[in-house]
Amino acid sequence: MYLRMSEFLDLIPPSVALARLLAATPRRCQPETIAAAGALGRVAFADIVARHALPPFSRSAVDGYAVRAADTHGASDSLPAYLRLAGEVPMGAAAGFALQPGECGLIHTGGMLPEGADAVVMVEYTQTPLAGEVELWRAVAQGDNVIHAGEDVAVGDVILTAGSRLRPAEIGGLMALGMTELEVARRPRVGILSSGDELVPPGQPLRAGQIYDVNTYTLNALVTQAGGHPVTYDLIPDQMAAFRAAASRALVECDLVVFTAGSSVSVRDLTAQTIAELGPPGVLVHGVNVRPGKPTILAVCAGKAVIGLPGNPVSALVIAGLFVTPLIETHLGLRQQRPRPAVPARLGLNLASQAGREEWVAVRLQATPDGYLAQPVFGKSNLIFTLARADGLICIPADANGLAAGALVNVLLWV
Amino acid sequence: MYLRMSEFLDLIPPSVALARLLAATPRRCQPETIAAAGALGRVAFADIVARHALPPFSRSAVDGYAVRAADTHGASDSLPAYLRLAGEVPMGAAAGFALQPGECGLIHTGGMLPEGADAVVMVEYTQTPLAGEVELWRAVAQGDNVIHAGEDVAVGDVILTAGSRLRPAEIGGLMALGMTELEVARRPRVGILSSGDELVPPGQPLRAGQIYDVNTYTLNALVTQAGGHPVTYDLIPDQMAAFRAAASRALVECDLVVFTAGSSVSVRDLTAQTIAELGPPGVLVHGVNVRPGKPTILAVCAGKAVIGLPGNPVSALVIAGLFVTPLIETHLGLRQQRPRPAVPARLGLNLASQAGREEWVAVRLQATPDGYLAQPVFGKSNLIFTLARADGLICIPADANGLAAGALVNVLLWV
Repeated sequence: MYLRMSEFLDLIPPSVALARLLAATPRRCQPETIAAAGALGRVAFADIVARHALPPFSRSAVDGYAVRAADTHGASDSLPAYLRLAGEVPMGAAAGFALQPGECGLIHTGGMLPEGADAVVMVEYTQTPLAGEVELWRAVAQGDNVIHAGEDVAVGDVILTAGSRLRPAEIGGLMALGMTELEVARRPRVGILSSGDELVPPGQPLRAGQIYDVNTYTLNALVTQAGGHPVTYDLIPDQMAAFRAAASRALVECDLVVFTAGSSVSVRDLTAQTIAELGPPGVLVHGVNVRPGKPTILAVCAGKAVIGLPGNPVSALVIAGLFVTPLIETHLGLRQQRPRPAVPARLGLNLASQAGREEWVAVRLQATPDGYLAQPVFGKSNLIFTLARADGLICIPADANGLAAGALVNVLLWV
Repeated sequence: MYLRMSEFLDLIPPSVALARLLAATPRRCQPETIAAAGALGRVAFADIVARHALPPFSRSAVDGYAVRAADTHGASDSLPAYLRLAGEVPMGAAAGFALQPGECGLIHTGGMLPEGADAVVMVEYTQTPLAGEVELWRAVAQGDNVIHAGEDVAVGDVILTAGSRLRPAEIGGLMALGMTELEVARRPRVGILSSGDELVPPGQPLRAGQIYDVNTYTLNALVTQAGGHPVTYDLIPDQMAAFRAAASRALVECDLVVFTAGSSVSVRDLTAQTIAELGPPGVLVHGVNVRPGKPTILAVCAGKAVIGLPGNPVSALVIAGLFVTPLIETHLGLRQQRPRPAVPARLGLNLASQAGREEWVAVRLQATPDGYLAQPVFGKSNLIFTLARADGLICIPADANGLAAGALVNVLLWV
């Protein structure tokens, strides 16, 4: 009665499973307008074009004297040039004078070049022997010590491409152009549904046989980290009617739905059956060739992705990193292929794995004079502290039957 | 009159400057109690100890039959063992029966082992030929397929050490123990003060000679990213009285204060003088041997760190990454030495640098079949888009006079 081996007969690798899921998921990225000052970590919805040049005018890059470069021709320590001081350029305003041949203007870093000036001589190479006269010991060429109008950005330049994530630098770039608002991708609403008659919300008293719900909270954090908007629901009792009701509601209210069911086969079957009934095309993948996380279900129902995660907390978090994070990034329209944070390390000991199946192993990083050692943290996938004690995860690819001590591994920092 | 070369006569390397600043900054980490569910990215204030074991009772790791291992001794396909079915263990409750010799109990993954049971036989190796009787084809040893009480965490185990940052896994661990609240380090309030008569808040109309304030917003984002609480102030006009008033107010209201002044020497002098007057011990470092960012000021006034950043947006952001981020982490009590996110890459071309001075260069990552190439993005430090076009930064150490194309570099992803 418990045997459901058929579901695992046809296991596919995680990368193939993910591609199948993403291909079947309609891209539902939607815009919302927010303040640029608060856009850290958000994703640009559309290309953003500069509406004016940056800097908007030619500025001095140093403290010194704005000159016509030709007037400094041949100037040196032994043969200085002498120019008449036409005035001082105020900060934050136009000079108020234009340079005539033989004239210079006192200018500060960031000051606007006066009309007629085409270079700046640094103050270190000048002195003012008489009021109204400046002695210069260096010749400058046109453009020396000048930041030209449009040198940073020209009108019409794409300054931010659709699908790029905003860091401090991008926010600075928008502000430099006076763009205080922008369209970003709305965070996709990710419904999180946990079930299991043994589960109790943390904080309530535990009776014999009960444990606290973990997955709702680890997934809530993972979804937040990935840029999604987590929507958590009450724990579902292990009954078909309750499953159906909760799933239907979440499918209406959210952009994608993540189930994490108890880990017994009967409860997994409840999840699978519920997902299958949610609408076409239904289940795309049932069982993935990865450890931990084999019983993963990937589906698209009523145009929305639905993922059935394993119930074990470690498996749930690892599999969510493999499937939920990329799905959220697809919903955000993230196009930037910046690599995920990782640390190169040497494996601390031999690790065996079953050839033909991808395996993810929790590791702790140990700093040594020769770089990091990655030390596996062993523990059953039911034990959440296996991950809490680890710094990251390494992947043993399916075509290996293990990794040798000393092998170079890439430790992904996403648990 | 503009020559202030003395301030740069005694330049020290960034690492020495940072150590001097941190040594002189009182550790002011303060606790606040928050919900564990919302603690992502926060830092534990104190060690957290498990108040009960995890799991709280011995559980089955599989679907099958709970047994006394001795009763299965010698069982095989050809010589099965036969046990009397004493009952079914409900999920989320005690069994309600104890196993007598010769008995077994139906149990689901995660179910609580009945009294008397010490192992579980997987359902795949059983059948029920008659009601009330179970045939088993496999022998099990004590503890097989059982997760023992306390196997994940024992009472009194330190589950989270003071100074560790909470990831999804740590939040899960707290929840597994029913700990819905915890003490974290309060986010330090970081005052951000920008000055420059040429600066205008983004969004207002620009007159000739004016540009938009960038640093307030890039620093706001960087402080947020580092775990601080940014407190931004109105732009300060380039006048001593205004500087003093703004600085004194920020020093009272915040845990640390960051100035970013205009880049002209006269305005830098205003900043330096203001900081020097804020209180003892005052300026610790004036000028750091790094490019960009030489005119950096590091101070401690009235028991709080005060940092004077260069006014150029690129320099300000790079230097903030070198000094403000570690300072915030010190205020958070962050002790975890998890490496900063970085990507190993090969340098795409030769880079010259001045020996004796550390240099930070913005690079763009280019994926190739042999890994990433780091391609320098050249641009003056006034040009914010130099950073917006880059994926990260590399460091040319002071003892090098450049790096050769093909050199292995570590690209830090923090701009």
